[in-house]
Amino acid sequence: MTSSGSTTQDWRTIAITHRANLDAQIPTEWRLTADFRASLPADGRLLQADPIRKSGILTEAELDVTENYSAAQLLQRLKWGDVSSVDVTRAFCKRAAVAGQLTNCLTEHFFPRALERAQYLDEYLKREGKVIGPLHGLPISLKDSFCLEGIPTTVGYVSFLKYGPAKENSALVNLLLDLGAVLYVKTNIPQTMMTADSENNIYGRTVNPHNTSLTAGGSTGGEGALQALRGSLLGVGTDIAGSVRIPALCCGVYGFKPTSNRVPFGGQISGYMAGIPGIEPSAGPLGQSIDDIELFMATVLSGETWRYDSSSASAPWGSSIPAEKSVEGRLLTIGILPEDPQYPLHPPVHRALTSAIDALRRKGHRLIQLPDPKTDNDTSTAYASRLAWQYFTYSPFINHMAPSGEPPITSVAKVASPLFTGELPISEEDIFKKLSALHLAKKDYSDFWRKTWAEYSLDVVLAPGAQNTAVPHDTYAWPPYTVMWNLVDYPAIIIPYGKASAKLDPETLILEDGVQPSYNPEVVNGAPCALQIVAPRFQDERCLSAARIIDRDIRL
Amino acid sequence: MTSSGSTTQDWRTIAITHRANLDAQIPTEWRLTADFRASLPADGRLLQADPIRKSGILTEAELDVTENYSAAQLLQRLKWGDVSSVDVTRAFCKRAAVAGQLTNCLTEHFFPRALERAQYLDEYLKREGKVIGPLHGLPISLKDSFCLEGIPTTVGYVSFLKYGPAKENSALVNLLLDLGAVLYVKTNIPQTMMTADSENNIYGRTVNPHNTSLTAGGSTGGEGALQALRGSLLGVGTDIAGSVRIPALCCGVYGFKPTSNRVPFGGQISGYMAGIPGIEPSAGPLGQSIDDIELFMATVLSGETWRYDSSSASAPWGSSIPAEKSVEGRLLTIGILPEDPQYPLHPPVHRALTSAIDALRRKGHRLIQLPDPKTDNDTSTAYASRLAWQYFTYSPFINHMAPSGEPPITSVAKVASPLFTGELPISEEDIFKKLSALHLAKKDYSDFWRKTWAEYSLDVVLAPGAQNTAVPHDTYAWPPYTVMWNLVDYPAIIIPYGKASAKLDPETLILEDGVQPSYNPEVVNGAPCALQIVAPRFQDERCLSAARIIDRDIRL
Repeated sequence: MTSSGSTTQDWRTIAITHRANLDAQIPTEWRLTADFRASLPADGRLLQADPIRKSGILTEAELDVTENYSAAQLLQRLKWGDVSSVDVTRAFCKRAAVAGQLTNCLTEHFFPRALERAQYLDEYLKREGKVIGPLHGLPISLKDSFCLEGIPTTVGYVSFLKYGPAKENSALVNLLLDLGAVLYVKTNIPQTMMTADSENNIYGRTVNPHNTSLTAGGSTGGEGALQALRGSLLGVGTDIAGSVRIPALCCGVYGFKPTSNRVPFGGQISGYMAGIPGIEPSAGPLGQSIDDIELFMATVLSGETWRYDSSSASAPWGSSIPAEKSVEGRLLTIGILPEDPQYPLHPPVHRALTSAIDALRRKGHRLIQLPDPKTDNDTSTAYASRLAWQYFTYSPFINHMAPSGEPPITSVAKVASPLFTGELPISEEDIFKKLSALHLAKKDYSDFWRKTWAEYSLDVVLAPGAQNTAVPHDTYAWPPYTVMWNLVDYPAIIIPYGKASAKLDPETLILEDGVQPSYNPEVVNGAPCALQIVAPRFQDERCLSAARIIDRDIRL
Repeated sequence: MTSSGSTTQDWRTIAITHRANLDAQIPTEWRLTADFRASLPADGRLLQADPIRKSGILTEAELDVTENYSAAQLLQRLKWGDVSSVDVTRAFCKRAAVAGQLTNCLTEHFFPRALERAQYLDEYLKREGKVIGPLHGLPISLKDSFCLEGIPTTVGYVSFLKYGPAKENSALVNLLLDLGAVLYVKTNIPQTMMTADSENNIYGRTVNPHNTSLTAGGSTGGEGALQALRGSLLGVGTDIAGSVRIPALCCGVYGFKPTSNRVPFGGQISGYMAGIPGIEPSAGPLGQSIDDIELFMATVLSGETWRYDSSSASAPWGSSIPAEKSVEGRLLTIGILPEDPQYPLHPPVHRALTSAIDALRRKGHRLIQLPDPKTDNDTSTAYASRLAWQYFTYSPFINHMAPSGEPPITSVAKVASPLFTGELPISEEDIFKKLSALHLAKKDYSDFWRKTWAEYSLDVVLAPGAQNTAVPHDTYAWPPYTVMWNLVDYPAIIIPYGKASAKLDPETLILEDGVQPSYNPEVVNGAPCALQIVAPRFQDERCLSAARIIDRDIRL
C-alpha cells in the first residue's frame, strides 16, 4: 500500500469513528427503525409525508411544543412556568435527532448537556421566581462554525478533528447563554463553507426535506433542513455570499443576513486566514417567522454585544431608525431589482416575484422597477458578482484537506474555476494597488446603491434570492443575487413564498453558460420559492419592519 | 540653472501665488496693520494679550456674538431671529480672518460665499417661518482634507494645486449643509497629515495661540488654534493617531474622536492609498464645551448618515446605550490608565491628572488604578504604539512632494525613522501572513481592553492625552497615549484642564530616547494641560455623558 493510500485510509477511519461515536450518543428510543426508513417516500418528498409525527418518536406533547408555538410564544410559556425548559429541550432534542437521521442536518449534538442546562434553568426559575434572561429556556441551534467549550469545531475538515474539543466559546455563544438560551446541536456545512451544498467528509451531505434529491443549500445548509423540519425554532448561521439566505430559500424558511458585526461574529472557526480585507461575513438567524427573527435580533443586540466581541458594531436593536422614519403602519416604497440577463430567473422564481409585486400593488404600496443596467455595466448584478468573486479568490487559500488526505467534495472541486463569465473587475498587479482598486470598486458599487435609495426614496428593495429554487445536488453554482448584498453589506431577509410547479411553469429553461443551473420543471416541482427584501447598511430594523408588512400583504 | 533648481523655483512660485491670492481676498478692513503686529507680545503669548479685541477689527456686537454664547445658544438665538445668520457669519469670518493672520491657522477661506449662504438662510427663515435644519445659520469650520465643491483641497501638497477646485463635496459637507450650517474656512494641517506640526509648503506653519513658539498640534492643528481664539465654535477634524485630540490638548480646547465612521468620513482627500487595511480614521469635532461637542454629534448622527456615505456606521446618536445603562445622575467607575515607563509623563501632565483624580475621589466616584503592564508586555501602551506604527508604515508611501519638487517639512523629515524604541510586533514576511498577523495582534489588544472594561465594570478610562503639553515646534514626536485608542477604535475626548507652571513644576525632565520631547519648565510655562476620557467602541454617548460629569466635578 502506498503512503498516499495509507493517508486515505486514515482520514476515512478517523471520520467514520467520529461519526459512529456521535451516532451512538443518540438514545436508542430516538432512532429511526429500518422499517420506518423503508416506509419513507421513494420520491424523496419527506416533508409532505410528515415523517417526524409518523416516526412515533415524539409524544403528542412534544409534537405540540415543537409545532404549535412561535419562539416568542414558547418563551412566554416558559416564563409563566406552563412548560419546563427540560420538556421543551427534550422535545427539540428528539425532533432534531430525528431530523438529523432524515436529512443529515446535524454535525455535533450534545443532548445530555442541553438537558442539564435546561434543568438548571428550571430550578433557577423555581428558586428565584424570575427568568435568567430574555431567552430563558429556549433551545437554539448553531452552525458548526460556532465554538462551544468542550465540543469539536471541525467545519467538516477531517484534519480539524485533531484539535479536539473547543477550549473557548464563541462570542455569540457566551451572549446566548447569558440571555438564557439552551444550546443542543450544531448544524452541517460544506467543506470550505464556500459552496451551496452542505457536504463534507466527516458528517456527509445534508439533503433537502422538501425533496432529498435537491440541495438544502449552504453553507448553513444543515440549519435550513433542521428549520424546515421544525427541529429548531431559531438557529444561527453566517453569510458572506448567501450562506444564511441560500439554505432559507432552498428549504422554505426565513433567513436574515444582518449588517455585518451587529450580531457578534467573533470566535468562530473558518479555516481562512483572518484579517484579509474583503467582504465582511455576518452572523444571522434562520427561523419560522419574521417575528421570531426580530425577537432574536432585538434580544441579542440589546445584550451589550461590545462586552462579548471587540469587533461588534454595538448599536442596540431599534436604534438605527429614528421613530419618525419608521415604516410601521404606512405604505412602502419598494424598488424592484432588475433581472440580470447573465443570470436569468427560473420561471417559478419569476412567478413568485410577479405574484408578490401584483399583491403589493393591490395593497397600495408603491413599486418602482429600478433601471436595467447592461450586464457588463459596473452597476449590474453580474459585475457585483464578479467583484465579490475576485475578493474571495485574490488571497491565498489554505488547504485543510491536504493534511488528512481527504478529497474535495464535488461542489468544492467545481468552485475551483470561476463561476461566472467575463473579466475580473481589477487587473492583476502589485498587491497594494490591487487591494486599493478592489476597495474603490466596492465603494463605487456601494455608492451606486446609496444613491439609488435616495433617488427613488426607497424603503426597501424587493429582489429574487437566487435565479433558482433548490436544485439537484452539486449544481447550485454561483449566487449573484445574494452575494451582491454582501458586497455592499446591506441587511437582507429571505421570505418563503409559494412553490415551484411543473404545472404552472412547464417549460424548461436551459442555461448555457456551463455554470449556472438550468430549470427542469419535473425535477424541482414542489421546491419552495422565495423573495428577498433588502435595506441599506445598518437599517436592519427597517428591513425587518418592511419585510413583516410585505410578508403579510403578499398573502392576503 | 539646473533642472532641479528650476523645479524648486517652480513650487515656490506656485505656492506663493496661491497664498497671495488667498490673502488678497481678505477685505482690507479685516487686515492687521503693521503697527498692530508690532504691538503683539514679544514672548509669543498671544491669547492672554486678547489680540482679537485689541485689533479693533470686530465690532462690540461681533465680539459679543463670538465670545458669549455656546453653539447651542447661538442656534437658539438664530432660530428666534434675535440675530441673523449674516451677522453671525460675518462675525466669525472676521474673527477667523484675524486668527488666521495671528496664527496661520487657515488654509482656504471663502467669506463671500459664506455670507451669501447666510443670507439665503436668513431669507428662508423669514419666508418660511422656520429654520432649514438644526444647524441653521451656524458657521462651522473644517479641516483642509474635507472637500467643498469649487474650493481647492490640497492638504498642503503643492502638487495638488494642479487639480484646481474640488468637483464634489465630502459626505459630511453635504450633510452639514442639509442641516443648515454655514461653511466659511478650512484649517491648516501638516504635509502628509502624519505629524503634530501643522506646517506645509503652501500655507506655512500654524502656531499655538497660547505661545507662538509652541506647536498648535496636528494634524488638525489649524482647527486647534482657530478654536482657541474662538474663530469658530465648532470645527471638524480627523483622527487616526490623535489628529483631533493632539491639537485640542495643545490649544486648550475640547476635541472628540468618535468611533470610526459614526461621523461620515467619506469623500475627503488624504493622498494615501485607499482601502489598505489598518487603523480606521475617524472624523470628529473640536469645540468650546462638551455640550457643543455633543450637539454636533447628536445633530450629525441623527441626520441619516447612510444617505451621505456608504461607509457610515449609521447608528443615530443616543442609541448605543440602553437608557437603563445611562451614566446620567450617578457616580462613575473610572479606570486610571497606568503611565507607561517608556513614555513618562511630563510633570504638568502628571499634576493635572493627579488633581483630577483627587477631585473625582472627593466627589465620590470610584477610581480604579488599572494594573501596570511591563513596557514590553503586549498589553502596554508602548506595545500598542509600536503596533500602530507598523500599521502606518507597512504599506507603500506615495510621495506627493516629489512631483512639485517641494521638500519635506521638518517634522515630516523626522518621522521617516521609527518614533519608538523596540521591536516591531509582527515580523517581516509574506504580505498576507503579515496582514493576518497584524489583524490578530490588533484583535488581541482589543480583547484586552474589552475584558478590562468588563473585569472592573468600568464606565470610562481616565488617561493622559499625551506625555506632554504643547512643545516647541517639530519636537512633538510620537503620540502613544492617543494612538492606542485609534488602534482599538474607542471613542476618546480631550478635556482641557489647568496649565503648565514653571513655578509648580520647576524640575526639568530629560527624556533620553532621542525621540520624545523633554520637559522644560520655562519653555512650556502656561501651556494648557488636559485629560483624556475614553469609552469602548460605539459607546460614544457614554464617553460624552461621563466626560460631562467629570468636566464638572474636576472644577468644583
